[in-house]
Amino acid sequence: MKSDIEGYFDRLWPINRSLTGEGNRKTLEILSEIVDLNIKEVPSGTKCFDWEVPPEWNVKEAWIENSAGERIVDFADHNLHLVGYSEPYVGTLSFAELDEHLYTLPEQPTNIPYVTSYYKRRWGFCMAHNKYESLDRSDTYRVCVDTSFNGSGSMTMAEATIDGTSDREILFSSYICHPSLASNELSGPLVASFVYRELANRDNLYYTYRFAFHPETIGSICYLAQNGRRLQQKLDAGYVLTCLGDEGSFTYKQSRRENALCDRVTEMVLSQSDCAYSIIPFSPIGSDERQYCSPGFNLPVGSLMRTKYEEYPEYHTSADNKEYVSFSSMEDTVRKILQIVDVLEMNHHFVNQRPYGEPRLGKLGLYPSLGTPKRNQEEFAAMMWLLNLADGYNDMLAISTRSGIPLSELIPVANKLTEKGLLVHGDYGPRKTNLS
Amino acid sequence: MKSDIEGYFDRLWPINRSLTGEGNRKTLEILSEIVDLNIKEVPSGTKCFDWEVPPEWNVKEAWIENSAGERIVDFADHNLHLVGYSEPYVGTLSFAELDEHLYTLPEQPTNIPYVTSYYKRRWGFCMAHNKYESLDRSDTYRVCVDTSFNGSGSMTMAEATIDGTSDREILFSSYICHPSLASNELSGPLVASFVYRELANRDNLYYTYRFAFHPETIGSICYLAQNGRRLQQKLDAGYVLTCLGDEGSFTYKQSRRENALCDRVTEMVLSQSDCAYSIIPFSPIGSDERQYCSPGFNLPVGSLMRTKYEEYPEYHTSADNKEYVSFSSMEDTVRKILQIVDVLEMNHHFVNQRPYGEPRLGKLGLYPSLGTPKRNQEEFAAMMWLLNLADGYNDMLAISTRSGIPLSELIPVANKLTEKGLLVHGDYGPRKTNLS
Amino acid sequence: MKSDIEGYFDRLWPINRSLTGEGNRKTLEILSEIVDLNIKEVPSGTKCFDWEVPPEWNVKEAWIENSAGERIVDFADHNLHLVGYSEPYVGTLSFAELDEHLYTLPEQPTNIPYVTSYYKRRWGFCMAHNKYESLDRSDTYRVCVDTSFNGSGSMTMAEATIDGTSDREILFSSYICHPSLASNELSGPLVASFVYRELANRDNLYYTYRFAFHPETIGSICYLAQNGRRLQQKLDAGYVLTCLGDEGSFTYKQSRRENALCDRVTEMVLSQSDCAYSIIPFSPIGSDERQYCSPGFNLPVGSLMRTKYEEYPEYHTSADNKEYVSFSSMEDTVRKILQIVDVLEMNHHFVNQRPYGEPRLGKLGLYPSLGTPKRNQEEFAAMMWLLNLADGYNDMLAISTRSGIPLSELIPVANKLTEKGLLVHGDYGPRKTNLS
Repeated sequence: MKSDIEGYFDRLWPINRSLTGEGNRKTLEILSEIVDLNIKEVPSGTKCFDWEVPPEWNVKEAWIENSAGERIVDFADHNLHLVGYSEPYVGTLSFAELDEHLYTLPEQPTNIPYVTSYYKRRWGFCMAHNKYESLDRSDTYRVCVDTSFNGSGSMTMAEATIDGTSDREILFSSYICHPSLASNELSGPLVASFVYRELANRDNLYYTYRFAFHPETIGSICYLAQNGRRLQQKLDAGYVLTCLGDEGSFTYKQSRRENALCDRVTEMVLSQSDCAYSIIPFSPIGSDERQYCSPGFNLPVGSLMRTKYEEYPEYHTSADNKEYVSFSSMEDTVRKILQIVDVLEMNHHFVNQRPYGEPRLGKLGLYPSLGTPKRNQEEFAAMMWLLNLADGYNDMLAISTRSGIPLSELIPVANKLTEKGLLVHGDYGPRKTNLS
Repeated sequence: MKSDIEGYFDRLWPINRSLTGEGNRKTLEILSEIVDLNIKEVPSGTKCFDWEVPPEWNVKEAWIENSAGERIVDFADHNLHLVGYSEPYVGTLSFAELDEHLYTLPEQPTNIPYVTSYYKRRWGFCMAHNKYESLDRSDTYRVCVDTSFNGSGSMTMAEATIDGTSDREILFSSYICHPSLASNELSGPLVASFVYRELANRDNLYYTYRFAFHPETIGSICYLAQNGRRLQQKLDAGYVLTCLGDEGSFTYKQSRRENALCDRVTEMVLSQSDCAYSIIPFSPIGSDERQYCSPGFNLPVGSLMRTKYEEYPEYHTSADNKEYVSFSSMEDTVRKILQIVDVLEMNHHFVNQRPYGEPRLGKLGLYPSLGTPKRNQEEFAAMMWLLNLADGYNDMLAISTRSGIPLSELIPVANKLTEKGLLVHGDYGPRKTNLS
Repeated sequence: MKSDIEGYFDRLWPINRSLTGEGNRKTLEILSEIVDLNIKEVPSGTKCFDWEVPPEWNVKEAWIENSAGERIVDFADHNLHLVGYSEPYVGTLSFAELDEHLYTLPEQPTNIPYVTSYYKRRWGFCMAHNKYESLDRSDTYRVCVDTSFNGSGSMTMAEATIDGTSDREILFSSYICHPSLASNELSGPLVASFVYRELANRDNLYYTYRFAFHPETIGSICYLAQNGRRLQQKLDAGYVLTCLGDEGSFTYKQSRRENALCDRVTEMVLSQSDCAYSIIPFSPIGSDERQYCSPGFNLPVGSLMRTKYEEYPEYHTSADNKEYVSFSSMEDTVRKILQIVDVLEMNHHFVNQRPYGEPRLGKLGLYPSLGTPKRNQEEFAAMMWLLNLADGYNDMLAISTRSGIPLSELIPVANKLTEKGLLVHGDYGPRKTNLS
């Protein structure tokens, strides 16, 4: 039986996505079934810092025929056959002339590469190298690239918000510009959408959660042009979700700040799970964290992945397809992100209400009335650490780190102490100073 | 021949100590022979933060007889036989009824466990498990627990002070509530008292030394209720002295601050001794450092021990007795604490009076007049390091750490440089900033 | 064919240098051929902090003859034969009387030791231990020490300055008080002079470079008395150049601050070279860094050496001579120092002019127009790191450290980005705060 994620994957897979165009609109329309999306059209030509939104690009058809009229490559068969943002062209060419417009992967002769030319006008086709090798060098070829650029078009972006009791924000950002590529990048929008679906049902969230769907680079730059100032003031943690489709272990790429809340939470959740994972340092080469962590913003945004872009051979080829990905793995990723949310939600700076000496726990039924050589060590330890470190400067992550007690053991005890009135919730988010 | 410590041990051993009662008064009266104690009675019912001083508890007699009139367990034989703070009871019971009031250690069948029930009214007896096994399950037993609770009584506490030239303070805190237990805890009050005796003879102490003797937990909480505000302003270093009776190597438990003066001094003294030792991090589970390091106070108080509570099988049993402890080891501990005091006393932030270039040492007879390829390397090195780092920000601990020269070599050279007027004493205690 | 350095070495070698005297003047006169020196005479008796400039010392002749009239030791043969600052003496002595004035190195029987007595009046001769052993113990000896102390003389010091566009300063300090000793210390003044010669030809230096030549200790103390206040305000990095004559690997001794600009630059230049080297921590025992790093100044001054003083057997003996040193090694040192200068000169805090999101590099021809799975990884990485970290807080050293990209690869890319207007130069020198 198909999982929900697989159902959506199958519907989204064949759509041609790019920086702009009908495919992106269609993609967001389908995701709207799960996510209460606020869709925005940003007109072509809109300035965003150093960039401007490109003309809207759409494809009617694109193919090459040999002189016998056989279609040797057809966009209708696979979106990757056409170089992204190819300009229109119709004509008949010798093989030598055609050859300048063909892209293959000699080292992966059965796979079609993913090639784009967003900002320089050209046309081209991508194909399996084996197929390319089989072409008759003496033949002539008819080429049809029936595409259009519309300077009065727009780039389609979408955002969804789940309001918490606070206006402090958590961001999940994914990108929707990759046609018929599975892990990179249908997995990001799918995982983000299913995380949204789970969170939308929750009551009493503290944080306001934002989910951003837009094309990579120009999309996130445009998003920052519209929202960057607010994010600088409100954002406590953010994540670029990408390459989350396979069964590889988790990879977390730190934010430029290295020790921001997004980093601390994720590293603790991963370290207290029993899954393998790796933490990699920030670098300005990668996905949309390049924009979120640009020096003018320097936002607390990391990137959660499984096998990282450029580190699997299927990357940016037709082999990054349904066989490459795993839907149960994507579901597992959704659960992992919900664990991160759970930690963010309880990551108060608790404040001990009886900070002078220890409270009389026995009076509250929290301490055995009989002093014997042995006692219930673990819960007692959690209680003592929480009371000792809950000075308003340590958040729960800091308490777990210093005490060595996993969050899963600290949280129920913190809740019990809160019920008893010994702890109250303090601020969320990073503190400016730490006196402890 | 008995050491002094042994003599006092023998007199204090049989006394029944608890949170309150005549035994505690008697204990402090004996220690008054060595320590100029200021004894305070805190009335039962006095509020101390979240706690209140319990009624005063005293024991006349307590025993169990079998139907043949044989005393099978008697408080007169060993204080540990009676559960601490047992309520009065007289009656005859079946074994099954009695059994609910008996405490043993099956895994240590010859030892009596130490059990208390300070804040819940019950009565009980502790005994060796072998003895317990030998009891006739079909017999009936006469029980006498002749104890009293006096709500108009008091808790007895004591403090002694050795005034220095400064009102900055060093605290030694020990607890007096353990009946007939040797390392934990006659050793703490004994060691503290003998440290007092040595220090009381000294002239020209810089620091004011306070010695606190009171019951654990409620006693230190009460002490903080009375003195906490002053300690927050005046205390530079403090030590909970506990479990110092055996021959195990030293254990130093850091303060909550981890790098407070008490921590730095003790770690350096231990590291520059030739004894084995271990440094353990702060945790809020333990002895009275739980109170001193509670988040509302967060005082610079660590704990000096030999083999730590809960880490030796005799802990909280009748086997923590005179055989378990060593009086020469306690004397050695006294000497080690005096070394800590010596370092505290000379841990100025020295200030070089000729800080611009190096002083002309030859003029003062501190430098060989002949420049040859060799010179007196060690004293010269100490002199140069002291002059270079004595900028008013480095204390002697910092100079020893950075130079790698032991304090024992630095101190005489520092004294010589002070005599020559090259160094003067700066502040004591931790600095707010370190510019060096 | 002789290198330039060798030519100067040969002319400087036989001159008798000391704290003061004609030999120092002659030395600076020769160096004036290369360096535009500003020579200062500081009168004997001038107070410098705790010191005063000694009387000027000059030597006419000094020798010992045996009763047969044979000169057994003669200053005319080797400057080291006479103890530095020997007082005048003429007389005839028994061997036993003479013996109190003789210095040898029994463990190096063919070498003459280097001995001085600057601040205590005495006279003495140094000689090879073999020669000393051969002296007739029953003979009498005629001694002539024809030296003079002139209280109206002066100490000779020199400075040269190469003005940059900024008044921020870099200091190279070497000492000129060692007679006929090669690595320690003709190498320092020679290397400093040849560095000067290279830098003097450069246009558009940012920093102002100062070169100081003076006797060790009293000279640098006097230099600080005159210039210390200005150096505290203006100096970004300084180097004591000493023991640079041999072929040993580089030794860099850190400044007292440990992480000053001089330390960071030098450690990076050495670590990104393919030469062996060692970094040693600051200590207040050594050469003139003792004065520059005295606590009243605490200047950012380290010391660059090859084999360190006291670590080679020839140190402070007649074996530290032309055979011991290598002129190609000194030339190599000059080049290494010029590399340090190159890094200092480009060690801006670059500021990205388009810090919000990444700039559109394709528009500037800095990004391939075709998005394919592969790209020119290294230059692209350098570009991205520079743009990301150029926030005005990271200098180039920090960017190289964090990115792991050697300066040699970063610099051309930084220059290209500057040409394109994406980066502009920010401040030089250490920053007070680092927000990144």
